[in-house]
Amino acid sequence: MRSTAQNAELALLLEVTGTPKPGNVDRHREYPDLRFEHFLAGAVGARPGLERAAAGDPLGESFLHAIDGMSDQRGGNTQFGAVLLQVPLVVAAGDDERALSPDRASAVVEGTTVADAANFYRAFEAVDVAVDDPPEGMEPLDVRRGSDAVPVLAERELTLQDIMERSADRDGVAREWVEGFERSFAAAESIQSGDGPVADRAARTFLELLASEGDTFVATKHDRATAEAVTERAQAALDGEIDPEALAEEFVDEGINPGTTADIVAAGLFVALERGMDV
Amino acid sequence: MRSTAQNAELALLLEVTGTPKPGNVDRHREYPDLRFEHFLAGAVGARPGLERAAAGDPLGESFLHAIDGMSDQRGGNTQFGAVLLQVPLVVAAGDDERALSPDRASAVVEGTTVADAANFYRAFEAVDVAVDDPPEGMEPLDVRRGSDAVPVLAERELTLQDIMERSADRDGVAREWVEGFERSFAAAESIQSGDGPVADRAARTFLELLASEGDTFVATKHDRATAEAVTERAQAALDGEIDPEALAEEFVDEGINPGTTADIVAAGLFVALERGMDV
Repeated sequence: MRSTAQNAELALLLEVTGTPKPGNVDRHREYPDLRFEHFLAGAVGARPGLERAAAGDPLGESFLHAIDGMSDQRGGNTQFGAVLLQVPLVVAAGDDERALSPDRASAVVEGTTVADAANFYRAFEAVDVAVDDPPEGMEPLDVRRGSDAVPVLAERELTLQDIMERSADRDGVAREWVEGFERSFAAAESIQSGDGPVADRAARTFLELLASEGDTFVATKHDRATAEAVTERAQAALDGEIDPEALAEEFVDEGINPGTTADIVAAGLFVALERGMDV
Repeated sequence: MRSTAQNAELALLLEVTGTPKPGNVDRHREYPDLRFEHFLAGAVGARPGLERAAAGDPLGESFLHAIDGMSDQRGGNTQFGAVLLQVPLVVAAGDDERALSPDRASAVVEGTTVADAANFYRAFEAVDVAVDDPPEGMEPLDVRRGSDAVPVLAERELTLQDIMERSADRDGVAREWVEGFERSFAAAESIQSGDGPVADRAARTFLELLASEGDTFVATKHDRATAEAVTERAQAALDGEIDPEALAEEFVDEGINPGTTADIVAAGLFVALERGMDV
């Protein structure tokens, strides 16, 4: 039987495999500088950090270790957001005998410390993550400052939960953290309820999530209007008005990568595997 | 930096990703009951056993543990031969500070024990591996007997090296074991010397290996004449007379899976990663 950390790693691998997953790297599509094999190495590299999380090490330390390992490939940021979503779920699953649940995961988020926040900031030094400029007055807490922001975190006594609450309105991963991982658990149910290859079911769930809510990574990289248009086009693909394969080609051509939605699918795959889904 | 066991796991993942790899599961091709995702789960599952091998646990025990973990998916035998090739190489790499070499690997083979042989036989109980009937007089040592053969091994004081020597004439993995992993190290050099995505280079090396020597898995499943014809067709693909993509479709249609050649590529990828090849 796979361990919790093995399930988290396998979820990362299954996520990148699912196709068609319009706009993202998948089994059939990649970018010259961000390839399928970078995601394989990213998943393998993240695992020791995920193991620490499962073993009860501090969440922020485990996350930092996972991101350090993930970064040991030439593609850059492959799974920062996915691992950020997985780590509290892994801690919750490893916490005690009870099944992984939204309540347990929220309790983990509530238990985060200033030290966890500091390690979260340090993780931004390991890899280049695309983020927006911070809102006015939040410049001292710009994640791009990395460890330079740590004294500010300490002075203001900000935990990782506090940081996530401040980003939840514009970042879909942070929103999951503070809203009980609602979409991650819904994704798990959607993936578990289907038939056929797991990676194909995950790709279908990706499209459903994309059609239901604007991808915040697209909104960051482009703008809100682009993210809304992406949502409509994903719905058209679900309705059979557009071929998802054609949509995948279009999004790649337009440089549209709904990365936050992929992160949520990776979290959903982890939850489904922990709940006994066979591969 | 990835550990030795992480490199072995990543090698398994890169091997299945490389395409076109005529006749085998790859990023673009799979069989209904043996899918790409089964290989992902197989690689993730094998890793704890590979870690034991790197840590210096007995080779046979480590192999058995890796195969137990590999089998935790619904596709059946995904990487038995690949892991069998990797384990002595992992032990050699984990053994001391010196670089992984054919001599070190052969020393590991020479150091195998009767207990290693017993655990090798036990591994056949975890998963259904396609093998030929044993030669006359070797029936008591048919690997399909699993642990029932263990008393015979003990009585005849046969080590795992002894077992491999008895199979080397008809099994390409056993031949590697007793011939200094010659093709595995040559594959590593071929993969390292190329440019571009690692998985593509591994697929090219697969074709070169396939053109140079009959695949023993094909010979077992079909016959020697089929294996020879496969060699000629692989050479034609290398010479540009056949499109490798078309050959891939043909082999899948004909049920030709050059699995032993894929195993050697997985071993070669591991050696290349250990020698510092970037992904």
